[in-house]
Amino acid sequence: MSEQKLAIPKGVRDFGPEQMQKRKFIFSTIEKVFQKSGYAPLETPSMENLSVLTGKYGDEGDQLLFRILNSGDFLSGVSENDLNGGAKTLSPLIAEKGLRYDLTVPFARYVVMNRHNLVFPFRRYQIQPVWRADRPQKGRYREFHQCDADVVGTDSLICEAEIIAIINEAFEGLGISAYSIRINNRKILTGITEVVEAGGKENDFCVAIDKLDKIGLEKVIDELKARGFTHASIEKMQPVFQLSGTNEEKLIFLKEFLKGSETGLKGVEELEEVFELANSLIPQENHTFFDITLARGLSYYTGAIFEVKAENVQIGSVGGGGRYDNLTGVFGLPGLSGVGFSFGVDRLYDVMETLNLFPEQNMISTRIMIAHFDEASFRHGLPLLSELRRAGIAAEIYPEQAKLKKQLNYANKKNIPFVIVIGSQEMESKKYVLKDMLEGKQELLTLPEIIRQTVR
Amino acid sequence: MSEQKLAIPKGVRDFGPEQMQKRKFIFSTIEKVFQKSGYAPLETPSMENLSVLTGKYGDEGDQLLFRILNSGDFLSGVSENDLNGGAKTLSPLIAEKGLRYDLTVPFARYVVMNRHNLVFPFRRYQIQPVWRADRPQKGRYREFHQCDADVVGTDSLICEAEIIAIINEAFEGLGISAYSIRINNRKILTGITEVVEAGGKENDFCVAIDKLDKIGLEKVIDELKARGFTHASIEKMQPVFQLSGTNEEKLIFLKEFLKGSETGLKGVEELEEVFELANSLIPQENHTFFDITLARGLSYYTGAIFEVKAENVQIGSVGGGGRYDNLTGVFGLPGLSGVGFSFGVDRLYDVMETLNLFPEQNMISTRIMIAHFDEASFRHGLPLLSELRRAGIAAEIYPEQAKLKKQLNYANKKNIPFVIVIGSQEMESKKYVLKDMLEGKQELLTLPEIIRQTVR
Repeated sequence: MSEQKLAIPKGVRDFGPEQMQKRKFIFSTIEKVFQKSGYAPLETPSMENLSVLTGKYGDEGDQLLFRILNSGDFLSGVSENDLNGGAKTLSPLIAEKGLRYDLTVPFARYVVMNRHNLVFPFRRYQIQPVWRADRPQKGRYREFHQCDADVVGTDSLICEAEIIAIINEAFEGLGISAYSIRINNRKILTGITEVVEAGGKENDFCVAIDKLDKIGLEKVIDELKARGFTHASIEKMQPVFQLSGTNEEKLIFLKEFLKGSETGLKGVEELEEVFELANSLIPQENHTFFDITLARGLSYYTGAIFEVKAENVQIGSVGGGGRYDNLTGVFGLPGLSGVGFSFGVDRLYDVMETLNLFPEQNMISTRIMIAHFDEASFRHGLPLLSELRRAGIAAEIYPEQAKLKKQLNYANKKNIPFVIVIGSQEMESKKYVLKDMLEGKQELLTLPEIIRQTVR
Repeated sequence: MSEQKLAIPKGVRDFGPEQMQKRKFIFSTIEKVFQKSGYAPLETPSMENLSVLTGKYGDEGDQLLFRILNSGDFLSGVSENDLNGGAKTLSPLIAEKGLRYDLTVPFARYVVMNRHNLVFPFRRYQIQPVWRADRPQKGRYREFHQCDADVVGTDSLICEAEIIAIINEAFEGLGISAYSIRINNRKILTGITEVVEAGGKENDFCVAIDKLDKIGLEKVIDELKARGFTHASIEKMQPVFQLSGTNEEKLIFLKEFLKGSETGLKGVEELEEVFELANSLIPQENHTFFDITLARGLSYYTGAIFEVKAENVQIGSVGGGGRYDNLTGVFGLPGLSGVGFSFGVDRLYDVMETLNLFPEQNMISTRIMIAHFDEASFRHGLPLLSELRRAGIAAEIYPEQAKLKKQLNYANKKNIPFVIVIGSQEMESKKYVLKDMLEGKQELLTLPEIIRQTVR
């Protein structure tokens, strides 16, 4: 194969050392928060039977599933008729497995399969790649990681409050200080359709109002009309579109506005309690805003709905989630309430890169390189190398005999911050030149002194 | 879908919390060793173009590749002739991408694509799943993780010695003390065929001698005969089969035996130097044994060959690797020498499970649970929960109002070692009952005392 033709498939990526260090910083920060919050790790296989995946993500989702060709003679059981029936007929006959599309459906499948062995409420986190045969474009990939945390088996609202705490702690750990957590409750959206006498049309309402941010009020009203909302209904909705003030003020208004809807008032009550519980967990929490236009288009949410955005950067949401009451129902285990949240690592990466938030310190692989002048000083360096590593310092020795300049050049290009130079004097005195490559300084030190100075 | 039908595909696995904790212990132990040794992380996509993958793993390997059905109307460009040409004809037309089969070929592809930006010698580690459409059986899976470390761009034998050091350190970290590193050199195997006048038949020789362990000398000789080795050649080989003694003694013998082969003597010299360098890095290293029967059947090794086995457990090798001189040649970049090693995580898991080596401490998710009697004590517990988490202690509060017995039961089943119980007295005195669930003891302590006592 000629070098020119070498390529990776569209929409997927290699992550070289620098990107990996940055990604690992994000993953480990989020993972530590999940762990401290009592979530236990879970991993599910990359492949699922298509019977588990199809029908769970809508028609569009089904088309975006990556399907895996059956191994061996995949045509062996296929009739001539089916063979000539087109891709839609043939596909299920020659591909029984598909790649994971998200972490939620495999999680639900896992919970149902292991229902008799799990301890409920069951808290798990899951950090794995997912695959979607989407049209690749800026910020949208065919392989990307999700970081999910879910609790199932309880409808306690402390779980919602803990999600707010988790987001706060994760963003603090990442060093992102300007962000907002928008929260809504599906029951409030249902309540609104009830009091404006458009009951049953809540899905249409959600789809339209979700766009208020992007397309403006006028076009949202056009869309509501197109979706069959009456003039009277839309008139009655007006105060909802105008809703402003503090979280408290909004809730006070809604208690009045939703008087005619039991469901709506339940939503308000839930939201109030979430705010109160979150405030007990993190006093003075001031990132969370009640946003009545938040719907996230996901029809399986039944209570709280969350979305997180970073300020000062033009990148959509960097995370989202909500409460669902029937995620496992489709697999035969109804009535298991849960709440989950998912961080969008690729977008968090872009936010941190744009705002220059990655801590320099964490992005270094090798901390010390040992340079040498000849075979003897190379050999002298080997036990030192071992001692550095035993002290927990990432270290390497330049592996070949080469001019010092070449060795230092290598260290420079690899951003190695310290170089020990071993010459004949150093071998005798056991004091070594420690070069600080960033500051351009150097000192003559013993190995224990070097370890003390460079260990983190 | 009915619950009974729920299943995951054959040969792949879910990893629940306990398995994940154990797996993470293995991964992070190995990863830390890689990092301390100056290897930088790399990840490549799960999907590669099939043009990159096919032809790299032999015919059998090609058949074990998982192929991904092209998205959309995958039959659109397929002629009627091709459609009726059978699976072999159709497959490349409807599947252009395949799943990663190992980490070595994608690494070689990455190096060639990024040759102008990488700093050589380039050291990377890579920990990712790979997929093989193998017949599933005990210990053989269709999705499994590999942990690879490679250095390319230098032929310095310090890299081989560092691999020995890495294996030592990784096993020490894992707590596996009984293991052996077997080492050989491809050039020695070549040399043997030369001095027994069977030059050019080294592949046949490798395949046969590799089986000495399993099938015994007699059958190896039968196989050599079947592969066309003459009686005279086999006679001359006898001393090789009988080779015993210390590493040094074996090398002394071979220096004499291989006198007629320049290549063979080079192999002996390399091996000697590797032992010497390894001894400088880890004095008294006593796990590494020269095993002249080690060939690993991989034709791309050109120098050192490694294999690691755990003692006291009947599980094949738990890792292997070697020196290759032309891995990137197939992608148009010849002459780049490298050496790599791969840990087999699934087998290491089995070894550690069998020998009961997983440290209890690391297998715990939640360290403290807060139990409560009523709404008031629940609320009182929330700021405590936050303080525990801020102190780095994985903590949760039982999310619902329930009898104490039910809460303690939950903690017990989840192996949570400590429970704080908050009642009305505790709320007043701010001294809380800390139950040690393993020892069955309890104490009355303030929160700072609890933190001091339970933090690790």
